[in-house]
Amino acid sequence: MEKVLAYLQKNQSRFIQELCDYVRFPSVSAQPAHKEDMNRAANWLAERARAAGLEARLEKTPGNPVVMATTGRRKGRPHYVIYGHYDVQPPEPFDLWKTPPFEPTIRDRKIFARGVSDNKGQHLAHLYAIEAYLKTNTELPADVTFLVEGEEEVGSNNLAAFLKSHREELACEAFVISDTGMPSLKQPALTYALRGLTAFEIKVTGPNRDLHSGIFGGTLENPAMALCQLLAQLRDKKGRVNIPGFYDDVKPLTKLERAEMSRLPYKENDFKKFLGVRELAGEEGFTPNERRSARPTLEINGLTSGYQGAGSKTIVPSWASVKITCRLVPNQSPKKIFKLAAAHLKKICPPTVKIEITEGHGGDPCIVDPTSDIAKAGLRALEKAFDAKPMLLREGGSIPILNDIKKIIGVDTLLLGLALPDDNAHSPNEKFEIESFTRGMQMAAYLWQELNV
Amino acid sequence: MEKVLAYLQKNQSRFIQELCDYVRFPSVSAQPAHKEDMNRAANWLAERARAAGLEARLEKTPGNPVVMATTGRRKGRPHYVIYGHYDVQPPEPFDLWKTPPFEPTIRDRKIFARGVSDNKGQHLAHLYAIEAYLKTNTELPADVTFLVEGEEEVGSNNLAAFLKSHREELACEAFVISDTGMPSLKQPALTYALRGLTAFEIKVTGPNRDLHSGIFGGTLENPAMALCQLLAQLRDKKGRVNIPGFYDDVKPLTKLERAEMSRLPYKENDFKKFLGVRELAGEEGFTPNERRSARPTLEINGLTSGYQGAGSKTIVPSWASVKITCRLVPNQSPKKIFKLAAAHLKKICPPTVKIEITEGHGGDPCIVDPTSDIAKAGLRALEKAFDAKPMLLREGGSIPILNDIKKIIGVDTLLLGLALPDDNAHSPNEKFEIESFTRGMQMAAYLWQELNV
Repeated sequence: MEKVLAYLQKNQSRFIQELCDYVRFPSVSAQPAHKEDMNRAANWLAERARAAGLEARLEKTPGNPVVMATTGRRKGRPHYVIYGHYDVQPPEPFDLWKTPPFEPTIRDRKIFARGVSDNKGQHLAHLYAIEAYLKTNTELPADVTFLVEGEEEVGSNNLAAFLKSHREELACEAFVISDTGMPSLKQPALTYALRGLTAFEIKVTGPNRDLHSGIFGGTLENPAMALCQLLAQLRDKKGRVNIPGFYDDVKPLTKLERAEMSRLPYKENDFKKFLGVRELAGEEGFTPNERRSARPTLEINGLTSGYQGAGSKTIVPSWASVKITCRLVPNQSPKKIFKLAAAHLKKICPPTVKIEITEGHGGDPCIVDPTSDIAKAGLRALEKAFDAKPMLLREGGSIPILNDIKKIIGVDTLLLGLALPDDNAHSPNEKFEIESFTRGMQMAAYLWQELNV
Repeated sequence: MEKVLAYLQKNQSRFIQELCDYVRFPSVSAQPAHKEDMNRAANWLAERARAAGLEARLEKTPGNPVVMATTGRRKGRPHYVIYGHYDVQPPEPFDLWKTPPFEPTIRDRKIFARGVSDNKGQHLAHLYAIEAYLKTNTELPADVTFLVEGEEEVGSNNLAAFLKSHREELACEAFVISDTGMPSLKQPALTYALRGLTAFEIKVTGPNRDLHSGIFGGTLENPAMALCQLLAQLRDKKGRVNIPGFYDDVKPLTKLERAEMSRLPYKENDFKKFLGVRELAGEEGFTPNERRSARPTLEINGLTSGYQGAGSKTIVPSWASVKITCRLVPNQSPKKIFKLAAAHLKKICPPTVKIEITEGHGGDPCIVDPTSDIAKAGLRALEKAFDAKPMLLREGGSIPILNDIKKIIGVDTLLLGLALPDDNAHSPNEKFEIESFTRGMQMAAYLWQELNV
């Protein structure tokens, strides 16, 4: 094990340079203009895996290719699959980035770039741990396969089919994913529950064209106002989502879980300052940590209507639209919540406008047993690498494919996240701490020992 | 007078050809690329006025030039100023035009082109009436000056200063403007009131950056939701603007005015079909014609927040903004209404977001006495030219300069509009009926007789 750790130490600056190379690809899966960048990023990763000593290939899907890289299988040995994603969130708005999103910049031992924390840096840490075993001729106590996809940020729509068609090759003890977070570098964490997601868009249409607000204004519904009045009704005064049936399937938090959550570091003033708000908000009867991890939400992600340029244009706009995502908790179902929302919206929509509701991607919420042997091995690897006792976390984000892994491959997933709360995932100025990267590699190296004690 | 009318009749096809020449200039004041086209259109008009027998010149302004053309002044004679504008609205979206906006096409006795109705055809009708007097050596009973500007569609920002610096030259009995509408060719109309306007923008800011909706969603206000809940409160269930004091200064409609309005042609099904809506909306207790001309409104012109691209982006957006214009009626004040709105919005804004409210442009509502001698002369001219009893109209749009004319020159304006409701002003496929044009010239010819009975 010393050789492995020494190798990681010795090659650190190369690893950082390579991570910088990797994040230069603008692999934005949501934007069709970046289609070719997806292939470039995937090819780079496959090449990197080969250099590490793995057999690597790209597998076509109806969307972006999947990178598969493996140590090879030897009979009688345990097998684990490490999942990651090489696609990234859109970088917009560009003007809020201090340095360009696809020109990685190191400041204060942090690497700034879109996708560096979510998720390129995290799965690369696992790859380098495997490289360290292979290049130092240290016996890797398990066979390992990397499965790195290019559609996580747009709902992993082709992954379930891929898991199905590769069921045999992917049969394993467990999946390992580093795509979650830890409260701080002194508080590593294993995540045992994630929120699910259902995304949808609403478009409300009034007149068949933008109309002169002087000549026609006052005689017909303004679709932007109709949309605002619809959306306003979706949240009540207690901060709850006001869709009948929305909370029906929510599994309540146990006393034990609430106690564990109350141990999480939380300083209200620091949190407010970090977010840049004067006051927090949220559902009555729950703490901020509960609200952001164990309670469902409905968030407006974007609003569009009428004239948005400089100055004014005196129109009644023809239409208005909104992008919404609901975060869901165990045991809510994305399909059911979408149906409830759509039915409610259609019911409360006034007859003066036409409403169209389009279902987007969805993902089930997920919860696993944090006391299993595999979970315990993960906790030990974290403790060794970070020199601190790890916490058990529920997280607010979503990894939709966890439920597919459970259903199709039949195994649980070990979530060993390396992102920090201020990494700005999905925001401008995303960063990844060099220490997260280096301790992450160590954790990934220890993991194979701990899993096979 | 027979000679004048005969001249108009005889030269009709030349007038139509010349109007076609005039609308070929893409004099789009909003688009800097058309700067030189503005000068070309202005020069064409000055040349045309000279050919009609007027003294014409271009006057520089900080923006586009003003065309001034006059019959000359003779002592002791009344003087009238005819106002028009040679600039036009942007033609976009091009793909909705059946024939190109700057290639005039005649179909079914209608001329299709951007600016043909708003306003080139309308002021040209006045010019040809004067030409008919001058070329037939018929005594014109008044001195007449044309003032045709090139910035009406972008707010006439330089016109007040121009009126001030030409106060003496423009001293007159009244301004005459044909830039409004009539219900149909069988219902000519004099417009005696216009709505005013106050424009403003609201920006609501939450977190200092877009945040991951999974990691943070649920713990803080979503600014887009906060904005929707604010805006939703601005309209009550009766379709009224819900800002305290908003209606305080509204001059109620008299019985006579309501009776006159009820004479306006109105077919609900046709109107709905024209707008493309299944149901109309508006303030309880008022008819659609009252709502769109004599009642104040608050309209959302545009909404902006978060991610508006393809697919979804799972964020709590940092901010949300809205563009609003209120149409105002006599005796509301744009400044006062802005202040009431801003104060109310600040009051109802939750402490979880920061609100910024920015005042835009404004214009006073306007009303003139429809029983004055000048108004009566206008009504007689309309009746003679259109063979029908004219109506008294209140219009929903705004012509901000009317109040400048009143303040600076000290006179009222006679509004003798020639546009039809389906002329598509500001929309694709703008047109002007040849009959509007020819009867408009006759009306303009009769006007000088009637004004001096």
